[in-house]
Amino acid sequence: MANALDLKKLLAEFIGTFWLVFGGCGSAVLAAGFPGLGIGFVGVSIAFGLTVLTMAYSIGSISGCHLNPAVSLGLAVAGKFNWKELPYYVIAQVFGAIIASAVLCIILSGKADFISIGDFASNGFGEHSPGKFSFLSAFITEILMTAVFLFVILSSTDVKAPAGFAPIAIGLCLTLIHLVSIPVTNTSVNPARSTGPALFAGGWAIEQLWMFWLAPCLGAALGAFTYMYIFNVPFKKPSKEK
Amino acid sequence: MANALDLKKLLAEFIGTFWLVFGGCGSAVLAAGFPGLGIGFVGVSIAFGLTVLTMAYSIGSISGCHLNPAVSLGLAVAGKFNWKELPYYVIAQVFGAIIASAVLCIILSGKADFISIGDFASNGFGEHSPGKFSFLSAFITEILMTAVFLFVILSSTDVKAPAGFAPIAIGLCLTLIHLVSIPVTNTSVNPARSTGPALFAGGWAIEQLWMFWLAPCLGAALGAFTYMYIFNVPFKKPSKEK
Amino acid sequence: MANALDLKKLLAEFIGTFWLVFGGCGSAVLAAGFPGLGIGFVGVSIAFGLTVLTMAYSIGSISGCHLNPAVSLGLAVAGKFNWKELPYYVIAQVFGAIIASAVLCIILSGKADFISIGDFASNGFGEHSPGKFSFLSAFITEILMTAVFLFVILSSTDVKAPAGFAPIAIGLCLTLIHLVSIPVTNTSVNPARSTGPALFAGGWAIEQLWMFWLAPCLGAALGAFTYMYIFNVPFKKPSKEK
Amino acid sequence: MANALDLKKLLAEFIGTFWLVFGGCGSAVLAAGFPGLGIGFVGVSIAFGLTVLTMAYSIGSISGCHLNPAVSLGLAVAGKFNWKELPYYVIAQVFGAIIASAVLCIILSGKADFISIGDFASNGFGEHSPGKFSFLSAFITEILMTAVFLFVILSSTDVKAPAGFAPIAIGLCLTLIHLVSIPVTNTSVNPARSTGPALFAGGWAIEQLWMFWLAPCLGAALGAFTYMYIFNVPFKKPSKEK
Repeated sequence: MANALDLKKLLAEFIGTFWLVFGGCGSAVLAAGFPGLGIGFVGVSIAFGLTVLTMAYSIGSISGCHLNPAVSLGLAVAGKFNWKELPYYVIAQVFGAIIASAVLCIILSGKADFISIGDFASNGFGEHSPGKFSFLSAFITEILMTAVFLFVILSSTDVKAPAGFAPIAIGLCLTLIHLVSIPVTNTSVNPARSTGPALFAGGWAIEQLWMFWLAPCLGAALGAFTYMYIFNVPFKKPSKEK
Repeated sequence: MANALDLKKLLAEFIGTFWLVFGGCGSAVLAAGFPGLGIGFVGVSIAFGLTVLTMAYSIGSISGCHLNPAVSLGLAVAGKFNWKELPYYVIAQVFGAIIASAVLCIILSGKADFISIGDFASNGFGEHSPGKFSFLSAFITEILMTAVFLFVILSSTDVKAPAGFAPIAIGLCLTLIHLVSIPVTNTSVNPARSTGPALFAGGWAIEQLWMFWLAPCLGAALGAFTYMYIFNVPFKKPSKEK
Repeated sequence: MANALDLKKLLAEFIGTFWLVFGGCGSAVLAAGFPGLGIGFVGVSIAFGLTVLTMAYSIGSISGCHLNPAVSLGLAVAGKFNWKELPYYVIAQVFGAIIASAVLCIILSGKADFISIGDFASNGFGEHSPGKFSFLSAFITEILMTAVFLFVILSSTDVKAPAGFAPIAIGLCLTLIHLVSIPVTNTSVNPARSTGPALFAGGWAIEQLWMFWLAPCLGAALGAFTYMYIFNVPFKKPSKEK
Repeated sequence: MANALDLKKLLAEFIGTFWLVFGGCGSAVLAAGFPGLGIGFVGVSIAFGLTVLTMAYSIGSISGCHLNPAVSLGLAVAGKFNWKELPYYVIAQVFGAIIASAVLCIILSGKADFISIGDFASNGFGEHSPGKFSFLSAFITEILMTAVFLFVILSSTDVKAPAGFAPIAIGLCLTLIHLVSIPVTNTSVNPARSTGPALFAGGWAIEQLWMFWLAPCLGAALGAFTYMYIFNVPFKKPSKEK
């Protein structure tokens, strides 16, 4: 059960995931398509990456700065995170994502020409993919992207990597992932990030939400196993962990 | 009262805030909407962030590189800055912002097709918000953005964070804040940055200026308290500070 | 002959080059020309650079993170890499590039309006140069770009350079190279990156492929010699290396 | 007189300034205005900054990586560079800029629809300013930009600043300078960068070249004096330097 120390960790994860969704989806909803001066997919990609970079230098020492259920899962698989903390982290992350979406909803509804929040930066496939990519394309993309993301997270925070630089590598990895895959799925690689906006967009976004839990989690495990093989990290039984 | 050492600190804050306003607002006024090749909101966001990143590596060791009354206030709340220095810092910052706006005004008036400085990158809400966002949307956005900004500043400069990287985290946090919120308020999170251009734009920009002092200061206090709770920083009585 | 340790190195090179081609060419094929919000050459340039930056912090300690036959060659010339490992590295890199192109092909074919993969981000000159640059312009550009790339790689990883920062310098050097030379050749400086897409695009892309092996290799040797002269690195006979 | 060691320093400055002009002006000439996908002023700004960032991590330990007569002058004023080396550095820098322009000229002339090199990314004011800014606006901008540039260079490499990060601060400072001032003068802050293209563009570019030597040198001295005052660096007589 979570003790006093854990509450600060969970608050840190809540704030961090709030920031990831508010900053990332906020840039997409508020600024991407601004007439003539909009930031486009490049700006949204930079924004998502910087949410992680900034928070990793902030709360990295407190909670590890996962901000993502798939990241927490992958770290647990690789023996870098306690399985017992996993459910608490996931709840804090999803809660942060939902509150961020709610606040974004309030801000957006104050726009003079506001009609509806529309798709609200939700993730989707098939006819709800920004570039109309099929389920299979979307599924492969999300698995692959999350696998490399976890591989970069685990290896750049390994003792063999230069100390202090991991937040740059990890944050900019998320930027890169968005530069490639926004047209395919609007880019998830993060079930919490998908859940927040979907609850407010409703309809198809909720119907397709299962895929954005399944694919990132599969990818995270794949990335973790690859890291463990290459970096000679032994498997541990979960029950042996403290 | 300020002594000789303080004058160098205050000159550093003056130069730094000059650079923030000249670089940030200058990119907006001179380059954002250049026909065909303009830098758009992405370029302006990068410019604002880089003013802070470059100055933090320059004058960080001299004055702490606040460049922002809300930052100075938040640092004082968290016990990281002497309350007695606060008014001097704020005056130096506002003075730097005004001089930067004046120089920018002179440069802009040398443009062949110059008519008037127009809104001059001033911050605004309601009909003066770039995307026509209401007062409430603007107020929430400014509070929230400044709160996270202070949280990132305080936690990335905490002894628990890797040394030397804070200017990257803080500068790119300001870039991220602009990527999200230029359409809402033209992005302030900095009362000095709002004051400089407003004095030259006049009219509505001065009438709405109070909000860009109030919201960033409220947000800064909120961010500081959150940092103190999560990082176990004890509250100190201001009078006990040297 | 490759032993067990080498297999992990080769797997690392495979994954890294997969990521370089999937991330870099993927951003070009999927996101560069997206209507209204596309990332353009700026986004593609950032994407290519970040594939190297992220992998250098990940697998730098395992395989050196070459991801490029020309880089492996240049490092061997400068005595920083064992000539005996060169063919294994090149095979792993080319294999990674081919698999990345295959996966990208599958994802792209799931697009609702998919007809053919077209040029598939292949490198070309003459009428197949994006900006219709001649063979000579393309040849000079590829030699020169790869020469400076190797010079930056070798000198930023030299013991005289500050430790830990080389992945930033090297990754962003690749971004810079793309910012300049996408219009000329679609930017190779990497024979593996050229080979992967060419095998799927076929036709002219395969006919012109020889140049994107020759020019980067010539450039790599030139860059390595320049580094050795300036940094006083003595020439070694290959046979004396372990 | 230059000895053997100096020749390597001078070669490093030649290569570095070649890279600055080839990368920066090359991105402007080849890629900025590419139809639909061009990198615009944002891309050119990033390119110029990355030329310095990449070279500073490469040749910083060899020559100090000035790449700019105004930088060499400012460092000499602040007592950080030997006045006796100044003329050799300036010659190497200007030579590098000229060769870079020549190579760029050759590459550009291989474009299928090539007619003339036009303004060739030359710096200008008045009717030759990209945004038609007057001489006074251009003069103030160049002085001011170079002054802050030198201030950032000197203070971020001061012993008080965190070690290793200066190339990031300095390179991105040049990016920021371009984000603001390309519309005003096409951005010089570097007499060598102005000289190279002007020799090939001819006409007005050569007539206006004097200003892009004078203003950056004045700004460099101003930036150096400001640094010396704030950082308590004592003035030395040039004759006392070794």
